[in-house]
Amino acid sequence: MIQEQGSFAVGGTILNTAGTYNNAPTAEGQSLHGDHLYAFYQVPQNPKALPIVMLHGAFQSARSWETTSDGREGFQTIFLRRGFPVYLVDQPRRGRAGNSTVATTIEPTPYDQLFFDQFRLGRWPDYFDNVQFDRKPETLDQFFRSVTPNTGPYDAGVISDAMSALIDRSGPAILFTHSQGGGPGWLTAIKNPNVKAIVAFEPGSGFIFPEGELPEAMPSAAGTLTPEAVPMADFEKLTRIPIVIYYGDNFPTEPTTERGQDNWRVRLAMAKLWVEAVNKYGGDARLVHLPEIGIRGNTHFPMSDMNNVQIADQVSQFLAEKKLD
Amino acid sequence: MIQEQGSFAVGGTILNTAGTYNNAPTAEGQSLHGDHLYAFYQVPQNPKALPIVMLHGAFQSARSWETTSDGREGFQTIFLRRGFPVYLVDQPRRGRAGNSTVATTIEPTPYDQLFFDQFRLGRWPDYFDNVQFDRKPETLDQFFRSVTPNTGPYDAGVISDAMSALIDRSGPAILFTHSQGGGPGWLTAIKNPNVKAIVAFEPGSGFIFPEGELPEAMPSAAGTLTPEAVPMADFEKLTRIPIVIYYGDNFPTEPTTERGQDNWRVRLAMAKLWVEAVNKYGGDARLVHLPEIGIRGNTHFPMSDMNNVQIADQVSQFLAEKKLD
Repeated sequence: MIQEQGSFAVGGTILNTAGTYNNAPTAEGQSLHGDHLYAFYQVPQNPKALPIVMLHGAFQSARSWETTSDGREGFQTIFLRRGFPVYLVDQPRRGRAGNSTVATTIEPTPYDQLFFDQFRLGRWPDYFDNVQFDRKPETLDQFFRSVTPNTGPYDAGVISDAMSALIDRSGPAILFTHSQGGGPGWLTAIKNPNVKAIVAFEPGSGFIFPEGELPEAMPSAAGTLTPEAVPMADFEKLTRIPIVIYYGDNFPTEPTTERGQDNWRVRLAMAKLWVEAVNKYGGDARLVHLPEIGIRGNTHFPMSDMNNVQIADQVSQFLAEKKLD
Repeated sequence: MIQEQGSFAVGGTILNTAGTYNNAPTAEGQSLHGDHLYAFYQVPQNPKALPIVMLHGAFQSARSWETTSDGREGFQTIFLRRGFPVYLVDQPRRGRAGNSTVATTIEPTPYDQLFFDQFRLGRWPDYFDNVQFDRKPETLDQFFRSVTPNTGPYDAGVISDAMSALIDRSGPAILFTHSQGGGPGWLTAIKNPNVKAIVAFEPGSGFIFPEGELPEAMPSAAGTLTPEAVPMADFEKLTRIPIVIYYGDNFPTEPTTERGQDNWRVRLAMAKLWVEAVNKYGGDARLVHLPEIGIRGNTHFPMSDMNNVQIADQVSQFLAEKKLD
């Protein structure tokens, strides 16, 4: 039962070219609207007060939150059924928000096997024994086809500006982020006090700490993870809202040469330091490493894994506890 | 009241790189899934038998069929309310179906003014007197931000292959096309007999005629429109289904130096010849030039114009007449 649904663009900028428009396909005197985000929203009957805004990660679009690769309902529909208005975002320079104010070149880059490893389905070509990912070939095909490229340079500032404009429009909201979306998510909450909580699934970038209090960078087989500095006045804004971070299974806490796994070892370690830092300044942040509470086999996409209803239940419990539902 | 909704990728191809995958971000031994389309579908309660599949035009995505630029319901929701399952497509190499097997470069191209003229909102910066387009600045802003670029070369063959795969999945369906989507739409119906009717809004490219029966190319202030040849056996497939084509208002039937208007003068003229050719071979094609039936002021986007409910009524009447509803 849907009361209302629709889509819009929000945020972004306008480029103007000098000269006089001459009724021709040349740049003179013309403008370009770009760097906005695209959002599709649905409002159920008798909605809860706070909508949920879902921001995808790298190489992904709003697709991340829709139907799972094995054809079940994703978080879009699960949380809609649970009574929340749901906004799905294609971030600036991705998906349907493709108009970028900065040029880029898109090469067809064969990264399926890298993604299989890095998104922790297994160690190519083998699945992890306990992985919460359906093993039908057509499921893997759907998973690979959820990948979509940047149509301009990735820019967390541009993304969080547009996200803040979205929150202005949606009003007070709960923010879900995935992976690379974690960084812009924190920045959105800094920019807009109407972000009332953040649920971050496997944040992968943009770990921000107060200036002068940065932990050491963390080398890994997948490169070095470097924390980023923000003014204390900004960092403190993250201490005013409840935050929960989830990481899944099948990566070690000790260094490994397995690139796809070592990538998450350092991210989990950095996230732990980040949660400590937020809480040290009076915040309400929590990190849930799912295997530690007995939830096994989750990939980098817990919101679409085979146990995604169980994950949604975890999130619902958190939202209930924080009186956000 | 929605029974089911979701999304998936369909069609496309797989590129494989020689060598052995070595757990690293290099191409060796890896694959790329690309050139699929992305579809989002919704099925209402008590659905009609035939779903409607909606294919967008150039510089656009499924967004074309969603909320209008002035914030009203678009054809996605209007036809859902009228009982049809609705599939919205992002074609291969566009929007959320961004993974292309062929490289491209995306330049931020300032074409707002060109689009204003070519999509017949008016003669920049003035709106046409009778235009069915809301004049609030925020409406024009939304309109410009619906533009999204190709993430690979435009290829009507790639698009119609993926569209045919979608029709295999949806089963017998009614196809709506817009603008540049017209050409791939005809090809989809040639490739798949489960396309049971086509409703084409302002087809802009891919006018196909039987080999040896091509009309003259038509020069215009916007370039020359050239018909394309297909084998008679293929052309005849278009004579087996009902087809209706709609064009809107505010372009002349005599040549003009106004680029944005002259573009549509030749397309309307070519479409008239095309309808004649289809019907000459026993087809059931109809061209509706909206001003001729007293419907004035339509832009290049009749499905989202201020009178889009009136346009939807025209389409519903056509579907009823052809017993497709």
